[in-house]
Amino acid sequence: MSEPVRIIPLGGLGEVGKNMTAFEHRGRMILIDAGLSFPRSELLGIDLVLPDFSYVAEHADVLDAVILTHGHEDHIGALPYLLREIGTDAQVWGTRLTLGLVKSKLDEHGLLVDTELVEIAPEGGRTRVGPFEAEFVRVTHSVPDAVAVVLHTEHGAIVHTGDFKLDETPIDGRTTDLGRLGQLGDAGVALLLADSTNAERPGRTPSERTVGSALRDIVRQAPGRVIVTSFASHIHRIQQVIDAAAACGRIVSVIGRSMNRNLNIARNLGYATVPDDLLVKPRRLEEFMPHETLVICTGSQGEPRSALTRIAFGDHPAVQINSMDTVVVSARAIPGNEVKVHETVNRLCRLGATVLTEDTTYVNASGHAAAEDLSRMLETVRPRAFMPIHGEFRMLQAHARIAEQAGVPAHAVRIAENGTVLELDGDGLSVVGQVEAGTTLVDGMNVGSVRDVVLRDRRHLASDGVLIVVATIAADSAEPIAEPEVIARGFIEPSDDGNELLEQAREAVERVLAECQAHRTTEVHLVQQELHDALAELVSHVTGKRPMVLPVVVEV
Amino acid sequence: MSEPVRIIPLGGLGEVGKNMTAFEHRGRMILIDAGLSFPRSELLGIDLVLPDFSYVAEHADVLDAVILTHGHEDHIGALPYLLREIGTDAQVWGTRLTLGLVKSKLDEHGLLVDTELVEIAPEGGRTRVGPFEAEFVRVTHSVPDAVAVVLHTEHGAIVHTGDFKLDETPIDGRTTDLGRLGQLGDAGVALLLADSTNAERPGRTPSERTVGSALRDIVRQAPGRVIVTSFASHIHRIQQVIDAAAACGRIVSVIGRSMNRNLNIARNLGYATVPDDLLVKPRRLEEFMPHETLVICTGSQGEPRSALTRIAFGDHPAVQINSMDTVVVSARAIPGNEVKVHETVNRLCRLGATVLTEDTTYVNASGHAAAEDLSRMLETVRPRAFMPIHGEFRMLQAHARIAEQAGVPAHAVRIAENGTVLELDGDGLSVVGQVEAGTTLVDGMNVGSVRDVVLRDRRHLASDGVLIVVATIAADSAEPIAEPEVIARGFIEPSDDGNELLEQAREAVERVLAECQAHRTTEVHLVQQELHDALAELVSHVTGKRPMVLPVVVEV
Repeated sequence: MSEPVRIIPLGGLGEVGKNMTAFEHRGRMILIDAGLSFPRSELLGIDLVLPDFSYVAEHADVLDAVILTHGHEDHIGALPYLLREIGTDAQVWGTRLTLGLVKSKLDEHGLLVDTELVEIAPEGGRTRVGPFEAEFVRVTHSVPDAVAVVLHTEHGAIVHTGDFKLDETPIDGRTTDLGRLGQLGDAGVALLLADSTNAERPGRTPSERTVGSALRDIVRQAPGRVIVTSFASHIHRIQQVIDAAAACGRIVSVIGRSMNRNLNIARNLGYATVPDDLLVKPRRLEEFMPHETLVICTGSQGEPRSALTRIAFGDHPAVQINSMDTVVVSARAIPGNEVKVHETVNRLCRLGATVLTEDTTYVNASGHAAAEDLSRMLETVRPRAFMPIHGEFRMLQAHARIAEQAGVPAHAVRIAENGTVLELDGDGLSVVGQVEAGTTLVDGMNVGSVRDVVLRDRRHLASDGVLIVVATIAADSAEPIAEPEVIARGFIEPSDDGNELLEQAREAVERVLAECQAHRTTEVHLVQQELHDALAELVSHVTGKRPMVLPVVVEV
Repeated sequence: MSEPVRIIPLGGLGEVGKNMTAFEHRGRMILIDAGLSFPRSELLGIDLVLPDFSYVAEHADVLDAVILTHGHEDHIGALPYLLREIGTDAQVWGTRLTLGLVKSKLDEHGLLVDTELVEIAPEGGRTRVGPFEAEFVRVTHSVPDAVAVVLHTEHGAIVHTGDFKLDETPIDGRTTDLGRLGQLGDAGVALLLADSTNAERPGRTPSERTVGSALRDIVRQAPGRVIVTSFASHIHRIQQVIDAAAACGRIVSVIGRSMNRNLNIARNLGYATVPDDLLVKPRRLEEFMPHETLVICTGSQGEPRSALTRIAFGDHPAVQINSMDTVVVSARAIPGNEVKVHETVNRLCRLGATVLTEDTTYVNASGHAAAEDLSRMLETVRPRAFMPIHGEFRMLQAHARIAEQAGVPAHAVRIAENGTVLELDGDGLSVVGQVEAGTTLVDGMNVGSVRDVVLRDRRHLASDGVLIVVATIAADSAEPIAEPEVIARGFIEPSDDGNELLEQAREAVERVLAECQAHRTTEVHLVQQELHDALAELVSHVTGKRPMVLPVVVEV
């Protein structure tokens, strides 16, 4: 009997990041990707944002495999948390480099030994993955060894592009395999799910190689040291920077933990080629003339403790900026990071460096297909149904419009949300339900049980601070038997003014306690409420701030 | 005897916002502008950022006047705080519209009666302002009635451009008066201070009028209602939107307090022309067909309680979005607001609206001169010395480079900082000192006395919350005489897990108190320290968070 394929996007729709999609067939399930995203500024104190695992956890017994399309955090970063949460023995599939990047993560979480890793051969024909005949198709992206996933089903093929760009001259020569995708299109593709990140950008995304020649010119003309920052996973960019240094007779120093780790993994697995004698440790930089050196470092997003930020704040032991330095920010600021990146750039300029950024110089090419490239993908695959993935709503909408223009019938173009349950069968794609698919917040060691009330309290504390009063009363009479204690943090400081307010607060406490005694109010909760109201009003009146007021009444 | 002119930038250098510059001569002082800026996200709970007033306050007795170049918050917003802080009777100079916008501010602060306002006639020749012969030259900007200020001194003229663009076809026909600036150049300008906001943008800034025709096309083609958001002070943009509505036979509804207030001021003073019968109240919108209506509203920066944000969240009584609506975001996102603006746009798209932004459609023109315009200004004024103002460091640096290319000798181009004291005399411009010029933070009613310790506490509370323990002990023996109280806010919630941790915390308190008793540690501060250390370690170990731990020991 024919059974539909269920498709449930669990992350990455209506947002950039934490990509994860479930595919179910005949009672079994696989996931494509398990990514994280970084908290927006209003998620105070939160370390990471993961997809909501509850649906997968409920069906952990039928999960056969997690397929990783490439090694970026927004596609693999949630994997260790997922595996720990659901305690599954699902296989993890990925290409060699992707698994290389995942291994160090699993190792950190103590999960490496128990996880079955299966290496994907991108040109290897069909393989069984859970309930599906899967096939992997090489795509180009801003990390090497990325793949699209094809699930061959009785209702036709499903193509999930992962993140991709169409680059005719990629650094490793491995282009997105449009030939194979075209063959699949000829045979009939039932559904295409494709990366929408750059759907709003017109035209075509330039080849990564164009950045290489621009970087080479910059390095050649730089009068002194060159410092380049980019994403630590962008192995091809790093390779190009290293090649530019080599071509101009400069040694290279790599600064930043993630940059060093990723480059090591890439070199060990053959994805980056760097002669040993080209690399020197940061502390050896001083042995060379500045114009003989190039530094590659982390910090392209203005991250507070990254190498470039420390350099910009004059706080790095190996690199002090001077007016002969050229700094190249070879990356785009992720939305939300703009101000931090500007701050870093301004500080570098102030220290005298010449700073080249995407805003003023050609030093970056995107890893995502732009509108014309997306059209080309659609025209190559010619899917009967289309669902845009990976992007904020307006990006998904722009991609949906491109699909309609490329000939997919409007009724077969579906903008879904995280948690939408879709079914693909002989009649096409339809929405059949909705499951929980919010976010899982990582807050210290706490994964997933941070609730709104905690974040609301943090926002309150963040903007107005806290005022604590401790009143000690006799249990029988409510008579105060110790001086009230008043402590303020985060709204006034213990200065003269502050002491005056604290003195007023102590007087207010005494007044309230006297009134309570007079009215024979001895119930602790009522006394606390009276204290709270009196102090909140006093403080708001005197300071205009509304700190969290926490009254503690101790009965002795 | 010849005396130098002192120039002290007190805000707006190395930053965008809170512009203020002092000019001193023969023992008297004037200020040009007194602007504010909005707090960056790390300034938790802060309402506004003002220039440091301490230098002006110390010299309040010699302050003769504050000249306002135009009516934007980053040029006038700090004025009420300044006047209140320094208790001056200095005159306030501004053009008619600028004074109109300032009056409502002064009124709110109860300062209107006591402040002497002097209206600037931009084509009125020379006037005495404090120790200077001043002249005002019309410039074009994104609020009408903006001026540059010329101070004629014995060492030559000083030209301060304020914010400006070169627009050959401005909406009010009042172009930047390059003719007069050229005459000044012919006579010899000793120093030019000029707006650097767009110094990094190549080419010329397009005319405001080009946006009008684009908006007209959008309004004409829109199938249903059109909703346009822009800055409330951008009277010419608002005028163009209204004109586009009128040309297409649509009535106009203005939503948002600041938008209504500014438009009223502009209409009353003759800076905007809107037939009464074109305007309808928002609640009357339902009387018209959608394609007969246009809404102008606040919210172009994604401000949380603005009209457009409420509309986007489906929370506005008069406007519910549907799929026939066209929303035009006719403004650029100020750095730091990108994510909020994206959120608004995504929500509007999700509700079905067609949303046009600067990213995808021509719906905005800047109010600041770009690189080629800045060259033209420099070539017109031909100053002997140049100082870029209004901008982050890299913008000032870009402007300095433009000045050198335009023929100002490198040694006469000076990138100063807030607080740099410069002197202009017959030999040119030189740096002679440095004064305090940080920031004044507005925190509720507290202006200026919020210190780093308070903000550091807020950041701590924001990310990790607070844990309060109250131990009540006998004064003589340190014996506990009441159950310890433990209160947590902002790091765990009072759930089962939370209660378990709180129970562990209570046990830890009892253990510490027993140890203190055993060791005869009765000194309150020592007991508090022991409690602090034990609880901090426990909580960090169990939760991975480091809340602010506040132990209170009450002796009875």
